[in-house]
This record gives sequence, C-alpha cells and structure tokens, in this order.
Amino acid sequence: MKSITVELADRSYPILFLPGLVTGADSAAQAPLAAAMGDSIFVVSNETVAGLYLASLQKLLGDRKVDVYIMPDGEQHKTLDQIDAIVGELLAGGHTRETTLIALGGGVVGDVAGFAAAVYQRGVAVIQMPTTLLSQVDSSVGGKTAVNHPLGKNMIGAFHQPKMVVIDVETLKTLSPREFSAGLAEIVKHAALADWDYFQWLQANQDSIMARDSACLMTMIEWSCRIKAVIVASDETEQGQRALLNLGHTFGHAIETLSGYGVVLHGEAVAVGLMMAADYSVRTKTLFDAAPTQLAQLLTAFALPTALPKGLNKADFLQAMNRDKKTTTDGLRLVILRDLGRADVTSRINERALEQTLDFFLENASGSG
Amino acid sequence: MKSITVELADRSYPILFLPGLVTGADSAAQAPLAAAMGDSIFVVSNETVAGLYLASLQKLLGDRKVDVYIMPDGEQHKTLDQIDAIVGELLAGGHTRETTLIALGGGVVGDVAGFAAAVYQRGVAVIQMPTTLLSQVDSSVGGKTAVNHPLGKNMIGAFHQPKMVVIDVETLKTLSPREFSAGLAEIVKHAALADWDYFQWLQANQDSIMARDSACLMTMIEWSCRIKAVIVASDETEQGQRALLNLGHTFGHAIETLSGYGVVLHGEAVAVGLMMAADYSVRTKTLFDAAPTQLAQLLTAFALPTALPKGLNKADFLQAMNRDKKTTTDGLRLVILRDLGRADVTSRINERALEQTLDFFLENASGSG
Repeated sequence: MKSITVELADRSYPILFLPGLVTGADSAAQAPLAAAMGDSIFVVSNETVAGLYLASLQKLLGDRKVDVYIMPDGEQHKTLDQIDAIVGELLAGGHTRETTLIALGGGVVGDVAGFAAAVYQRGVAVIQMPTTLLSQVDSSVGGKTAVNHPLGKNMIGAFHQPKMVVIDVETLKTLSPREFSAGLAEIVKHAALADWDYFQWLQANQDSIMARDSACLMTMIEWSCRIKAVIVASDETEQGQRALLNLGHTFGHAIETLSGYGVVLHGEAVAVGLMMAADYSVRTKTLFDAAPTQLAQLLTAFALPTALPKGLNKADFLQAMNRDKKTTTDGLRLVILRDLGRADVTSRINERALEQTLDFFLENASGSG
Repeated sequence: MKSITVELADRSYPILFLPGLVTGADSAAQAPLAAAMGDSIFVVSNETVAGLYLASLQKLLGDRKVDVYIMPDGEQHKTLDQIDAIVGELLAGGHTRETTLIALGGGVVGDVAGFAAAVYQRGVAVIQMPTTLLSQVDSSVGGKTAVNHPLGKNMIGAFHQPKMVVIDVETLKTLSPREFSAGLAEIVKHAALADWDYFQWLQANQDSIMARDSACLMTMIEWSCRIKAVIVASDETEQGQRALLNLGHTFGHAIETLSGYGVVLHGEAVAVGLMMAADYSVRTKTLFDAAPTQLAQLLTAFALPTALPKGLNKADFLQAMNRDKKTTTDGLRLVILRDLGRADVTSRINERALEQTLDFFLENASGSG
C-alpha cells in the first residue's frame, strides 16, 4: 500500500492510496482504514457520490454507529446553513467529541465537512475520502476548510488537519470529463510552481492521462500530493511558502466571484488564472516569453479554458482581486512565475502590467460566461 | 500596571489591568494597548456597552481605520447568524487577515467576536476587552469561543487565543446587580475548585465585594485570572486538567438549555450547578458534609440562587446533561469536589447518587423558571 506522510509534528497524518476501497473492488485494502476509525462515525456526502459509493463505505464501516448527512450537490451549497444543518444532525444523533466525521465526495463536501469537524464542539476528527481529481490532489490535503460568504469565497473557515486522507483512484472513472479536467488545472499548477520534471512528464503523458489510465493517474496523483505535502509541512497556516499554492488563484477567485459560484468550475477559473499569472510574469520580465504558450498547450490538451468568459469588466475584476483573502493591508499580493517549475510571492505589484494583463484577457474573452 | 501572562508558547498573551482605560478616567494607561494594535480595527460590541464606552474606545484608537458592529444584547443572539453578519461587515469594510477585532462587552460579545475572529479568513487577531465581571474572570481568558445551536449551548466554536486581554475594573460600576452577581458565581467556582485560601478571602470580604470596592475587585479579579491562566496554560484544548473549570457546568448547562437561553443567566445556572455538584460529591462521599452549607452561604451572600427554577423534570434534565459537550462516548463525565479548594474529573458516575441529587433539587425547586 502506498502512502505519503504530511509532516506536522503532533498533527502529522498519512495520505493512503487504496485503489478499490470505496469502489468496492478490493476489500483487502480495508484493514488499515478500519483500524484507524473510532466507534462512532458521521459521514457527509452529496447526492451524486452517495449514490455511487455510500453503500460500499457503509459495508466497510461494519457495525459501528454510523449516521449520514447527504448535502445537495454544488459550490452554491458551501454555506454556513449547511454547517448549521450538520451540527443539528450531529447533536440529534448524540455525537460526542470522540466522533469521527468522514468527508466522502469532492472539494465542496471536503470543505464543508472539514469545517463542520473544525467547529463541532470546538473540533472533532475528520477523515477525508476525496472522490474527485481536484480534491484528491488539492483540497483534501493540508487542512484548509471553509464555506463561502455571498461577498467572498472561502471567507469563513479554519485550518483543521484531517486525521487521514484516503484516496481511491478508481473513483475517478465515474467523473464527468468536465470535472476531471477541472482537477487537472491544479495539477498543472503544481508542476508550474514547483517541478519542471513533473511539467515535462505531464506533457509526455497527456494522452494516457486523458484516457484515465489507472497507473498513470496513480503516478500523477502521488506526485501532486508529494508536492503539496512538502509545502504544507513547511508552512501549515500560510505565513510564507504555502502562498505559492495560490498561483493563478487571485485571478481565479475573481473569475468565480464575478461569474457567480458554480457557473465556472474552480479548476476552470484556475486554468485561466494560471494563464493570467503567466502573462503578468512575462510582462514584468520574470518569466521567459514562450512559457505561456507551453502552458496553454498543456491546459488545452487537458480540455481546459485559457481565456476569460465574456461579460466581465475591469473595475469589478480589480475590486474582486483586492477583496481576495491573499490581500494584505499593504495591498494585493500575487504569485508570479520565474520559470516553469518555479514561483514566487510578491506584493510589489506593477499596476501598469496588471492592467495590461486584464485588458488583454478581457479583450480576448471567448468562453461562455 | 499589573499584568498576568497566559503561558502558551508562541500563543502566549498578557492580561493587562488598566483601570480607567475604557471608562476614560485614566488616559495614561493607554500607551501599552495602543502599541499592540495594528492599523486596521473592527470593534464588536452590543447596544448597552457601546452606549457606555464606545466613544472613549474610539478616541483611544485615534486615526486608525475603525469599523464597528453593534449586536443586539443577550445570549439568544449568540448564533451563526451573527457570525454571518459580522463577516459580511468585515468584507464590506475591506478588512484583511491583518485586521484586529476588539470584543468590547460581556461574555456573549466575547464569544461571538472571538469565534468570528477564529473563522474570518481562517483566523485573525482578537483583543478581548471584557466589561462584565463574568467575562473578566472567565470567558475572556483561555481562547474558548463559540455560538449556540438550538439543540445545545456552545456547540459551534473554536479554540482561538486572544492577542491580549484588557481589563478595566471601573466598567463593573455600571453593571446591574443581577449581572454582577452572575459573575461572582464563576469566582466562587474558581475558589471551590482550586484554592481554599481564596474561598476564605471571599468569605471575609463579601461585603466589600458586594459594595464593589475598587481595590477589592482588583484583588479578586487578578486572583481568579491567575487561577484560570495556570489551568489554561497546562491544558489549552481541554484534554485533562482544564475540564476542572467545568465544575457545576454540566448541571448548569442543562438548566440553561431547559429554561431557554437568556431566561436564567449563565452565572445563575452555574451557582445552582455548583450546589448540585457539591450535593453529588457529598452523596458519593468525596466531600465533607458541611461543605454545601458553606458554599450556599457564600452564594447567598452574593445574591445568587442555590435552588433550581420550578417546572423542570428529571428525564429532560438527564437528557440535557448527557448531551453536554463534556460527555464522552464512555458516557457522562462530572467534576466533583474533594474539598473546598480541590476538584477532580470523573467518568465513573454513581447513577443512584446522581438521581438522588436530581430528585432532591427538583423537589426543592424554588426559583422562578
């Protein structure tokens, strides 16, 4: 069994790779998970994922006390109301501080269940069981949990490390092409900010990846999880290096906020955000001129957008960027590229270059919005 | 200037005693506070306290960027809706992760503002400026923050240590007699669980305390804060010794839950809870027989109730106790007294003695309910 440890002293935890665990193909993989769980379990999932995998998870949980909360599908349900509802069910079920929550689903389920675990009785354990590519390589690892506020994404949240992350790559076989591609955006981001070898590997294996070859997916997800685990271990609460993971995200969050949550997928917004960060980096002479083309080729091969949706305007875009969480009192901070495989955080913003980037992308908007 | 440090490694912080600070009597005391605050401030207060002290606090804050949120008065407003509203105002005001919240008010304001600070953008700094006796000796120190759920008190929360606690004992002069007494319940609790010398001092000084003699209040609040600071430092997230601070609270929370939030004050419920914990301790032979009488004399001198309100029943009471946060999967845990000045946590509950305690207090209910 493959595993990676996220090193965080007394909050260290394993990322376990257990193909077939929740898809039911391999029950031998269940032992280490079963051993780690307590007697009282509360599963949070959504309508789609529960229909596919809840029965086999429940079988796996055996005769433990198990309650289940099924939330509606979609980013628009990442709200405080869902937290209130989950806490109500936890209390109604008599769950104590020793209960373990299991987040079975994608990024929304992981964020909501993770935040519910962070605040229920001031904190209970959570096991992340991500079932989308995006959540397997990104949101399930690192302890960031949050819900949205109408005025901003992820504005209400907590750092709450999971007790364990369990990844079953077989779940990716049932993902829609659009959601699969959205996950690849974070993978391209990992390669672009941290590892030129990984970037080249993605270029070389793009066809196998899009064909969802199991061995290829496993290599890729492990590679991304390792990059993320190292960065999180070095900077749990984003005082420094962890901010590199926001490459493309300040632009991306503005796209999501202005389009309305759930219209553009997070990964799609990040893909365009990566292009904008690269464009800005070229304009400010930190990145070589041909890099955006290479980035665009890879994103396009992964069926991701590289242009803004139509209908956005510059003033709103700038305001949304300035309201982003990464903003400090000194003003906006941006993650820039110094190479494909190397990034940096800067708060010295070249306003003129930023406006040029926005103008260029707004003029060349092509996606539906 | 007097101060106590709560020792929590990189989260250590001072409790500063600055009489006259927010009452405006002594502006010389302002320097250390002013030095500790950032450039961007968001004050949370309530209608009553804001009317009394907001103007002098704003004067003290000078030309910083200051936004203010005034919440309605009372425990019934300790809700997620208030968190949502505060986050909305923070975002509308463009507040970043570097903003400092100031909680100016009693326990409800401190808990709500503290929890808002814990979750806004996954955590910003908060300075607690408690203006009630209860919050000065108890809720402002130790980092427990929470809001209520209709099914249970403080069920949604976080451990989030303040950057600083600032206590101006002069604010106690404007407290209603009922609220002042409610605070004394936690003080009696501190003495009963940790310090027989303190208990005797309270007995000897009960008249000066009730007359709100400034020097006497200062000695008392400092004594209670020291007891609390030592316990919190030894066990920040309540894995062990900190549970001692729940003396009387499992009973007390049941009283509050069953009476409806805001009908019985928290301190009043704790006073009765202390009597019930003492009664149970005598029945299980851990406490000497005369102790409840001494406890009742002190609570009565402090104008606190020692009997349950009428109209409660045993089944509901037991259910509410079992739903308390201190409950584990092994069942109920209780803080018992071994002496006046010494307490212990136990999960070995004597069911018969517990029922006898409940029967006795339900039969002798006398307060309004």
